[in-house]
Amino acid sequence: MPQASTADLYSVMSTLRAVRRLKPDPIPDDVLERILQAAAWAPSGGNVQPWRIVAVREPGIRADIGKLYAPQWEKYSRAAKLNLEGLEGDVKAKQTRTLAAADYLGEHMGEAPVLLVFCFNPAHMAITDIDLDRPSVVGGGSVYPALQNAMLACVQEGVGCTLTTLLCYEEEAMRALLQIPEDWYTCAVMPIGFPILGGHGPISRRPVNKLVYEDTFGSAITLQR
Amino acid sequence: MPQASTADLYSVMSTLRAVRRLKPDPIPDDVLERILQAAAWAPSGGNVQPWRIVAVREPGIRADIGKLYAPQWEKYSRAAKLNLEGLEGDVKAKQTRTLAAADYLGEHMGEAPVLLVFCFNPAHMAITDIDLDRPSVVGGGSVYPALQNAMLACVQEGVGCTLTTLLCYEEEAMRALLQIPEDWYTCAVMPIGFPILGGHGPISRRPVNKLVYEDTFGSAITLQR
Repeated sequence: MPQASTADLYSVMSTLRAVRRLKPDPIPDDVLERILQAAAWAPSGGNVQPWRIVAVREPGIRADIGKLYAPQWEKYSRAAKLNLEGLEGDVKAKQTRTLAAADYLGEHMGEAPVLLVFCFNPAHMAITDIDLDRPSVVGGGSVYPALQNAMLACVQEGVGCTLTTLLCYEEEAMRALLQIPEDWYTCAVMPIGFPILGGHGPISRRPVNKLVYEDTFGSAITLQR
Repeated sequence: MPQASTADLYSVMSTLRAVRRLKPDPIPDDVLERILQAAAWAPSGGNVQPWRIVAVREPGIRADIGKLYAPQWEKYSRAAKLNLEGLEGDVKAKQTRTLAAADYLGEHMGEAPVLLVFCFNPAHMAITDIDLDRPSVVGGGSVYPALQNAMLACVQEGVGCTLTTLLCYEEEAMRALLQIPEDWYTCAVMPIGFPILGGHGPISRRPVNKLVYEDTFGSAITLQR
């Protein structure tokens, strides 16, 4: 197996950020194919790959998806703006910029050259937490790794991307628009396109020692350098 | 942003396979830290990072997790073996080898040097498909990208890994063992360790044109080379 240099994989991962201002310019087929191939390589439970992508490039269908997305985003955005009022300083400034970019996407999603609509079929999944008395997430374990691979490939290819799950609120309209069969459902829409501004870059995340415990929940891990 | 060469990211993705025979040798802290950092870089809804990892290194706790896993795997394995009887030729041979490796893990999980137990808190998630009349998966969108990043980092580091969700059937026992608070739940266990055999390598996946449609579900995509 070829060994990649440490810098490459990790520089891709550490610069994957939501890119929400996308040029309408088409994505060349070879670039799109590498992004889709990355998704296809992802692991899934029992290697069943219980997901499909509808890659929407036809302008009329993209516009229709954009029209479904705009009011959903608008509703979310109103709540987020109320929330902003309680913030101050750098945090407020940063979230204001993020919201502005997301508002842009809300108005322009249909203009992104490709909308990747991820679909899944739960009948092909072993959802081990489906009977527990809490929200089930395990089905996502066989689809979201494919989305993550696709997004990492976007970074590699210089293609902007972001992911929304808001269109689950419009699943039946999406089903009609994309002719999705009854036993398949939608789990995310990923608009992709070349970035208008800086594209992928620095991200802010919690440090490892706030996310990882050792042996029992709540005991911060100690790692020797 | 540093641009990685195409070969590196894609060679990692295309060689991420389940590695189920793991040496008990410890993983150096610097290697483990890079794997955990990769997880921490993953995107999540609203950048909330509603997940935590309990990295179990203490031998007694690992052994206890192994004891919870063994009967769950045994039950699954029995069904898989019945299923094998209906297969023939290469497919049967391949699945027989996979089951043998998985049986090995079933007996030896507690001997892997680190068990990464992924936990999540649904109260910190916007689960947009929770009220739909089908299994919800969207919560997984904020946790499984972190698992995928961790597994890709394992490939990079030469560390074997695999993922099981079977221990969701033992969530309350896991909660007691790892002192997981009431509002947190488990979504996967990832045993990691240096490989006994060949480690990561070739994978078999459906081709892109069987997984990706264009504009409407069922219309295979056409990409120009």
